[in-house]
Amino acid sequence: MARRLIVVSNRGPLSYGRDPSGARVARRGGGGLATALRGLLRRDDVTWIASAMTDEDRAVAAEAGGASFAEEGRDGSSFRLRLLAHPPAAYAGFYDTVANGALWFLQHYLWGLASEPELGADFHAAWRDGYERVNETFADAVLAELDDDAAVCFHDYHLYLAPAFVRAARPGALLTHFVHIPWPDAEYWHALPEAYRSAVHRGLLANDVVGFHTERWRDNFVEACRELVGADVADDGTTVRFEDREVRAVAHPISIDVEEFEALRDDAAVLEEERAILARRPEYLVVRVDRTDPSKNIIRGFRAFELLLEEHPELRGRVVMLALLDPSRQTLRAYEDYLERASAEAQRVNERFAADGWQPVDLHVRDNFPQTVAAYKQFDVLLVNAIYDGMNLVAKEGAFVNTRDGLVVLSENAGAHAELAEWVVSANPFDLEDQAEGLYRALTMPAEERRRRSSAAAAYVREHDIDAWVDAQLDEIARLSGASRAV
Amino acid sequence: MARRLIVVSNRGPLSYGRDPSGARVARRGGGGLATALRGLLRRDDVTWIASAMTDEDRAVAAEAGGASFAEEGRDGSSFRLRLLAHPPAAYAGFYDTVANGALWFLQHYLWGLASEPELGADFHAAWRDGYERVNETFADAVLAELDDDAAVCFHDYHLYLAPAFVRAARPGALLTHFVHIPWPDAEYWHALPEAYRSAVHRGLLANDVVGFHTERWRDNFVEACRELVGADVADDGTTVRFEDREVRAVAHPISIDVEEFEALRDDAAVLEEERAILARRPEYLVVRVDRTDPSKNIIRGFRAFELLLEEHPELRGRVVMLALLDPSRQTLRAYEDYLERASAEAQRVNERFAADGWQPVDLHVRDNFPQTVAAYKQFDVLLVNAIYDGMNLVAKEGAFVNTRDGLVVLSENAGAHAELAEWVVSANPFDLEDQAEGLYRALTMPAEERRRRSSAAAAYVREHDIDAWVDAQLDEIARLSGASRAV
Repeated sequence: MARRLIVVSNRGPLSYGRDPSGARVARRGGGGLATALRGLLRRDDVTWIASAMTDEDRAVAAEAGGASFAEEGRDGSSFRLRLLAHPPAAYAGFYDTVANGALWFLQHYLWGLASEPELGADFHAAWRDGYERVNETFADAVLAELDDDAAVCFHDYHLYLAPAFVRAARPGALLTHFVHIPWPDAEYWHALPEAYRSAVHRGLLANDVVGFHTERWRDNFVEACRELVGADVADDGTTVRFEDREVRAVAHPISIDVEEFEALRDDAAVLEEERAILARRPEYLVVRVDRTDPSKNIIRGFRAFELLLEEHPELRGRVVMLALLDPSRQTLRAYEDYLERASAEAQRVNERFAADGWQPVDLHVRDNFPQTVAAYKQFDVLLVNAIYDGMNLVAKEGAFVNTRDGLVVLSENAGAHAELAEWVVSANPFDLEDQAEGLYRALTMPAEERRRRSSAAAAYVREHDIDAWVDAQLDEIARLSGASRAV
Repeated sequence: MARRLIVVSNRGPLSYGRDPSGARVARRGGGGLATALRGLLRRDDVTWIASAMTDEDRAVAAEAGGASFAEEGRDGSSFRLRLLAHPPAAYAGFYDTVANGALWFLQHYLWGLASEPELGADFHAAWRDGYERVNETFADAVLAELDDDAAVCFHDYHLYLAPAFVRAARPGALLTHFVHIPWPDAEYWHALPEAYRSAVHRGLLANDVVGFHTERWRDNFVEACRELVGADVADDGTTVRFEDREVRAVAHPISIDVEEFEALRDDAAVLEEERAILARRPEYLVVRVDRTDPSKNIIRGFRAFELLLEEHPELRGRVVMLALLDPSRQTLRAYEDYLERASAEAQRVNERFAADGWQPVDLHVRDNFPQTVAAYKQFDVLLVNAIYDGMNLVAKEGAFVNTRDGLVVLSENAGAHAELAEWVVSANPFDLEDQAEGLYRALTMPAEERRRRSSAAAAYVREHDIDAWVDAQLDEIARLSGASRAV
C-alpha cells in the first residue's frame, strides 16, 4: 500500500466554473506548479488541500461543508480535494500583498532597496491578518486530514508558516516542503523585519525535508538558516539541526511531462499555429516565451535583440524575435507597469529598425499554449534571460520539443542552467552585450555543433522528466517513514 | 624603526588649490576615509599614493615628474605623497561608472535588478579602459615605491584590482586591503558578469590581509570567495586559501578621532551654530546627518517621521526633525534625483503638518560641519536608518558628542550596529512602522535609562577610537612581517 499523501498548495489541480448552459465544470488549474503536481495524482492516495479560487470553488467548498470530497482527474485518477474559502480581505493580504507583492520580489532580488519595499501599517496588517491567518487555516485543514499514515507535502512560498502550526500540534508528523522559487542569500532577507524573516525560516525548519530545484538555492537556504535563526549545519552541508530536530535540505530539479509534450507536437491546434508561423518564418527565428513578470527580464531581452541588430546589420531583415507573453498578475501595479514598458520597448525597437515590410519584434500578449508549442518546434534560438528563476520550464520544454536543432540562450541565474549548462549558450541577465553576443553565437554556430547540443539537451530532458522529480519526492518520504514505497 | 607603509587610496589626505592671491594651498582631503587615515601619518613612515583630484593636484604631480615628494600634515607630521594624474576619460569610467556607479550600488544592495544595472558597451569600456587601467596605474606606482621593507595598505572599492597587478610582479610583497563598505552575499554579485565579479574577488585575494568593519561583511566576503572563485576556507572561517596562498580576512571596526571631537565641542564656530539651534529648539529635537546618498535612506526617514506625527498627534508642534544633508555625487543622475525626491518629501511632510509657525522638518542641504557638531550636541534622538552602511561614523560621532542624554535610532544594517546595539534603539530600515515606533520609544524613554544608554555608548566610543583601529592595522602588518612593531 502506498502511504497517503496530503498535498498542500495554494492553487489546486483543478478549479470549478460554469459552462454556458449553467452546468458546473472542472477546469485544470493554471500555473506551472499545479501542472507539475498532477503527476502525483496517478501515483498515490492523495488528498489535496488548496484555496478556493473562483466563486464556483467557494460553492463547491460550501457544499462539502469545508471537508474533503472525492474528485477525479482528467486521466481518470481519483483523489480527494479540500478547498479552503478564505475571507477575501485575508486572502488579498496573503496573496497579493505578502506572497506575490513581497516574497516573490524578495526571492527574485527584484526590489531596488533604495525605495522598495516600504513596509507600513498596511503590510504589517497583511502579514498578520492575511499571511499568518491563511497559513493557519491551511494548517488546520492539514490537521483535520492528518492521520498517522499520512505524509504532508507543502508547496511553495505561499505556505512558509503552515508547517510550524502543524508541527506544534503534531510533533511526530511527517512534513515536507518544496520551494519552487530561488532562495536569496541571508543578507537580502534583511529586507523583511526580523520577526518575519525569522518566521519564514522557522516555518520551513518545522518540516522534515525542504526541497529546492538546485543546489544553489538549497545552499543559500541552509546558510540563511544558520545566519538568521542560528541553526546548526552538519558537515554534509545539508542536514540542519534546529530546536532538537533534524531537517534535510535537498535539491531535486523539477521537469516536464515528456509524454504530454510528445503528444502535443502533433496536436491539431499546435499544427495549425505552426503553419501560421511557417507562413511568416524569417531566415532566423528567435523565440521567447514568458509570463509578463519582471523576473523574466523581458525589457533587457528586447534591448539585447536591438543590440544584435545594431552590431550585426547583416541580420536586419533576416531575423525576427517572436515574443509570446502571457499576461500575469495584472492586478499588481508593478506587473501592469512592467507589461506596459515591455510593450513600449518592443515598439521602439520596431520603429527603429522596421524596413521593407520586415519588423524585428513580433509581440503577442495573450495566453495561447498551442502557439507556444508551435514556436518551441520552430525556434532557431530560444532566449531565456531570467533575472532569477527557480527552474524555468520554458528552457526544458523548448529544448525537448524543438525540431530545428535550435539552441537555448540561457540565463546563468535560471535553475535550469545548473542542468543544461553544457549544451546552452550561457548569458548574464544584466549584461546586454553578453546577451546580444550569445544570440549571435547561437544563430551562427556551425550546424553540426548545433545538432550535437540540441539533441543532447533533448535527450537529457527525456531522461530527467517529471516522473523522476515525483519519484525523488516519494523517495524522500519513503526514507523518512522507514517503509519501502509500493510501486 | 617602524616599517615603511605605502598607503594607497583614491582620495589622498590633502588636495591642492589656489587661494585668492593665487598662492598654492593644501586643503584637507574630503571624505570620511581620508579623515580616518590621517591618523596613520602621525605613526609611521608613510608614502601615500592617491589620484590627483584637482587641476592644482595635476600641476603638483607634473612638477614632481609623477614621483613622490615630501609633504607635511597640518599637525606637522611628515610623509611622502605621490599623485597620479589619470587621463580624464579613464578616470570617469573608473570613478563615476564603475566605482560609484556600479560597485557602490551593488555593495549597498541599491539596484532594483528588474531594471538596473543594464550593462552595455559603455560599461564594458569603462571597466576595461577605466577601472582596470586606473587600477594598473595605481599598481605601477606601488611597484615604483615598493622596497623589501615596505608594506602596502590598499583602501576601498576603487582599488580591487590593483593588488593582483602588484602580486604578479612582486610575489613576496606584503599587501593589505581594507574595504570600508558592506560586502554583499555571493548571490548578489551575480549582477556583475562572471569575469568582473571574479576579478574583484581574485584581486582582493592577492592581498595577505583583507579587512572589513564588521564580522558580518567579513563573513560575506569569505563565503563569496568560496562560492565565486572556489577558494578554500579553513575551519576558523577566516583563513582563505587560494592559488597556493593564504589570505586572512579580518574585522576591525573603524572609529572617530575622539580628541578632535572633544576639541570641537568648544570650537567657536560650533558654539555659534549651537546658539542658533538653541534659539529655535523645540521640546524634542530629532537630528539626521547624512550625505545625500540613496544608501542613507533619507526618504524613508521623512516618511517614518511623518508616521510618528500621524500616530502621535500629541507630538505635533513639539518635535522637529533637523535634517542636515551634505550634497554628494551630484554628477550622478541617481544622486541628483534622490536629493530632489528627498527634498520634495520633506516639503510634503511640512505641508501636511505645519501649523502655528511650527514646521516638522527643518531641512538644510549644504556641507556645514560646525552645524553638524552643534546638532550632535543638541539632539534628543539621532536617526541613522541607513539601508546598508559599512560602518556609519555619524552614529559614533553623535553618540560621543551629545550633551543631552540623546539616543541613536540605528539601522540594523549599519556596521556600527554590531558595536552599539545594546545602547541604541534598533530599527529595520525598510519598515516605516518600526522606525516610527523606534523614534517614539527613544523620545519617551525614561530619563534614567536614556542617561545610562547614552553615557555607555559614549564611553564605548572613547575606548574604541580611531587609534585602536590604526593599531589593529599596524598589528596585522607586524604579525605578517614577523617583526615587532616599534611604538
